[in-house]
Amino acid sequence: MSSSAHSDNSLKLEATSVSCWQLWQAVRSKRPLVHCITNFVSMDFMANVLLAAGCSPAMAHSLDEVESFVAISSALLVNMGTLSPEWVASKKLAAKKAVELGKPWVLDPVGCGATPVRTTSCLELLACKPTVVRGNASEILALAGAAASVKGVDSTAISNDALEDAKHLASKHSCIVVVSGAVDYVTDGQRVVTVRNGHPLLTLITAAGCSVTALIAAFVAVAPGQALLATAHALAVFGLAAEEGLKVVPRPGPGSLRVALIDLLHMVQEDTVVEGVRVAVMSQLS
Amino acid sequence: MSSSAHSDNSLKLEATSVSCWQLWQAVRSKRPLVHCITNFVSMDFMANVLLAAGCSPAMAHSLDEVESFVAISSALLVNMGTLSPEWVASKKLAAKKAVELGKPWVLDPVGCGATPVRTTSCLELLACKPTVVRGNASEILALAGAAASVKGVDSTAISNDALEDAKHLASKHSCIVVVSGAVDYVTDGQRVVTVRNGHPLLTLITAAGCSVTALIAAFVAVAPGQALLATAHALAVFGLAAEEGLKVVPRPGPGSLRVALIDLLHMVQEDTVVEGVRVAVMSQLS
Amino acid sequence: MSSSAHSDNSLKLEATSVSCWQLWQAVRSKRPLVHCITNFVSMDFMANVLLAAGCSPAMAHSLDEVESFVAISSALLVNMGTLSPEWVASKKLAAKKAVELGKPWVLDPVGCGATPVRTTSCLELLACKPTVVRGNASEILALAGAAASVKGVDSTAISNDALEDAKHLASKHSCIVVVSGAVDYVTDGQRVVTVRNGHPLLTLITAAGCSVTALIAAFVAVAPGQALLATAHALAVFGLAAEEGLKVVPRPGPGSLRVALIDLLHMVQEDTVVEGVRVAVMSQLS
Repeated sequence: MSSSAHSDNSLKLEATSVSCWQLWQAVRSKRPLVHCITNFVSMDFMANVLLAAGCSPAMAHSLDEVESFVAISSALLVNMGTLSPEWVASKKLAAKKAVELGKPWVLDPVGCGATPVRTTSCLELLACKPTVVRGNASEILALAGAAASVKGVDSTAISNDALEDAKHLASKHSCIVVVSGAVDYVTDGQRVVTVRNGHPLLTLITAAGCSVTALIAAFVAVAPGQALLATAHALAVFGLAAEEGLKVVPRPGPGSLRVALIDLLHMVQEDTVVEGVRVAVMSQLS
Repeated sequence: MSSSAHSDNSLKLEATSVSCWQLWQAVRSKRPLVHCITNFVSMDFMANVLLAAGCSPAMAHSLDEVESFVAISSALLVNMGTLSPEWVASKKLAAKKAVELGKPWVLDPVGCGATPVRTTSCLELLACKPTVVRGNASEILALAGAAASVKGVDSTAISNDALEDAKHLASKHSCIVVVSGAVDYVTDGQRVVTVRNGHPLLTLITAAGCSVTALIAAFVAVAPGQALLATAHALAVFGLAAEEGLKVVPRPGPGSLRVALIDLLHMVQEDTVVEGVRVAVMSQLS
Repeated sequence: MSSSAHSDNSLKLEATSVSCWQLWQAVRSKRPLVHCITNFVSMDFMANVLLAAGCSPAMAHSLDEVESFVAISSALLVNMGTLSPEWVASKKLAAKKAVELGKPWVLDPVGCGATPVRTTSCLELLACKPTVVRGNASEILALAGAAASVKGVDSTAISNDALEDAKHLASKHSCIVVVSGAVDYVTDGQRVVTVRNGHPLLTLITAAGCSVTALIAAFVAVAPGQALLATAHALAVFGLAAEEGLKVVPRPGPGSLRVALIDLLHMVQEDTVVEGVRVAVMSQLS
């Protein structure tokens, strides 16, 4: 099996880059506290994903408390689902505090483009200098100001169509941008990394995308200066846990996959990760 | 086995009536966006039920956003659980928008009768002209203004006792009313359809009733002019998925059933649906 | 196997004390309505835990409705996770109403000590005279005013270190205090009962602690005058269901355990409970 061209071992983006497994072990040993201000739908699953992967989740959203929580956390996750003016205010306050304290924070622009309020709120958060932004193609296109037809919170555009917009967005806002899809694209504006882990059945599990964004926050927290790589690795381990989970489910349905995904995030072994992760540097196009 | 008298095939309520399987296939191919303004307890399970059944869920509740979401949705679900004044205001605004745009909306009067605030709020929503109302017998009795002893959010009345009230409610408000129970009764005020799918263990899974109401919204969305039939079919497929799920669980517990129910909503095949659906027109009593 | 010294059968704390199984059967037959004002993360799991164990959950938080809900409930659960000023106001109002009506209420001081707002809010609720307080060692230490280093919502202190503080807290506020950990300590300020059921994997399931606190509310509701014993028994059956669940899971992961725990709360039999419960009176130290 000649997967070496795509294997994690060949990925040397930074001088000090670590392997996916090393990074995950760092997450498990440091057990970063990830402060999540997320939507109501995703809270339970996101917390369980973070716990299974070896992190410590904390959900807190009150305007009078978020700054204190950012101060004791390792990273911040801001998700724009089920938004309201009060929650958006808290999200902005928390994001600013994270930047002030030099802590990474990750933005999930759920449903950006679906409604004017949603788009405006996402743009306000983007202005708060996130470390990473992860969305599907429609959301990234909308966030980039491109014309996009967004239907609810699912993607109606093909993710690689959004790649150029993602690169511009990343360059302009000095952040990492992820366009999620059958293949995930991760870019800092210059370099592009592809992640080919996961399974289509994940799209039938609510909050799967939200939860992987929280996992990105945890991985970035333990890899200072390696946000591009850490982001790709977080996407890879989540997708790989789904792949491995599907191998042990009694039925290939989304209910069973959800259970097995949590199990595998806790149980997957080193050799499986080393062999199974499909992260690769994309050839430069320009 | 002579179940033909009760089978879906014999159900000809409208000139253009479709079979349960045909309708479900229409749901899957059209993938209706169901805008859900629901309680906090049910959001995760409801979203997963809709995704597994082939729909696209969207949870959004902010007063400044709900009208925009109704505009891009195929149907609206309003559930009265975990209510608060702000959310009730959003629910009313969304319901009015749905009526204005000619889109179906479904009301789940959770806990109607349990507290004065709850009952009043449910009545306010009822005045917003829902397409379908689904509740247990206690809730429907309370909503109909009948004297009822409601204990929390569980039903303490027998569903067929509420049938006459349901018929009056349906006639007066020109909507479909469902009284859920061991047998579900669906009425437009004139006709009554019974649905005999499901299992008592479903009553131990929180948000099972909430989620089937959301599924009703999806089915009604793809069957204009056939709300009575579409409602019955949605109840039937949910109940059937539970029946089939119980056949494959490792243990007959509510945790395993919940997982299998989601799986089966995704995986159940045509012949199982055609043979297993128990929807029938009830003989007219008056 | 000489577990008699630690077995439930030897536990005679009160003249009328009942066995764990008897108490659980009382819960199942009386089906107490437990009014839960809890955090967003825990609602779904907590409701399913209560349903599986034979209780009737009701989630309601609106300021204009909580007093009415307390009035029709058997017990109240107040959890301080995902707090906000509006919710804290509702929690205080509900707690006062419970005391006024002579109904038991249980406080879960989630994250007490993590932020100033959190600590202050927990102390305000403590002043509302809870029947039982359950937290991990860090939370109990913080609540007791002791110096404590709290990291998020996980415990960083060893539970038996907090035992003396728990006894003082219980005496001063005339309530039962639980310090959860590998061993749970339950005290009324004078007596200490230990519960040695459960499994470390439970710490990877979000809301496990929140949910057992809700179960305590149910058990206390059906055992007037026996709050110490009822609290210990609730902790024991939850931990035992996890132990038994782990014996039947396909994989020892937190996803599978969560499913099996719900199943076992519904299915576990009398002999398993009688033999498996590990509740004991601790020797008096002072």
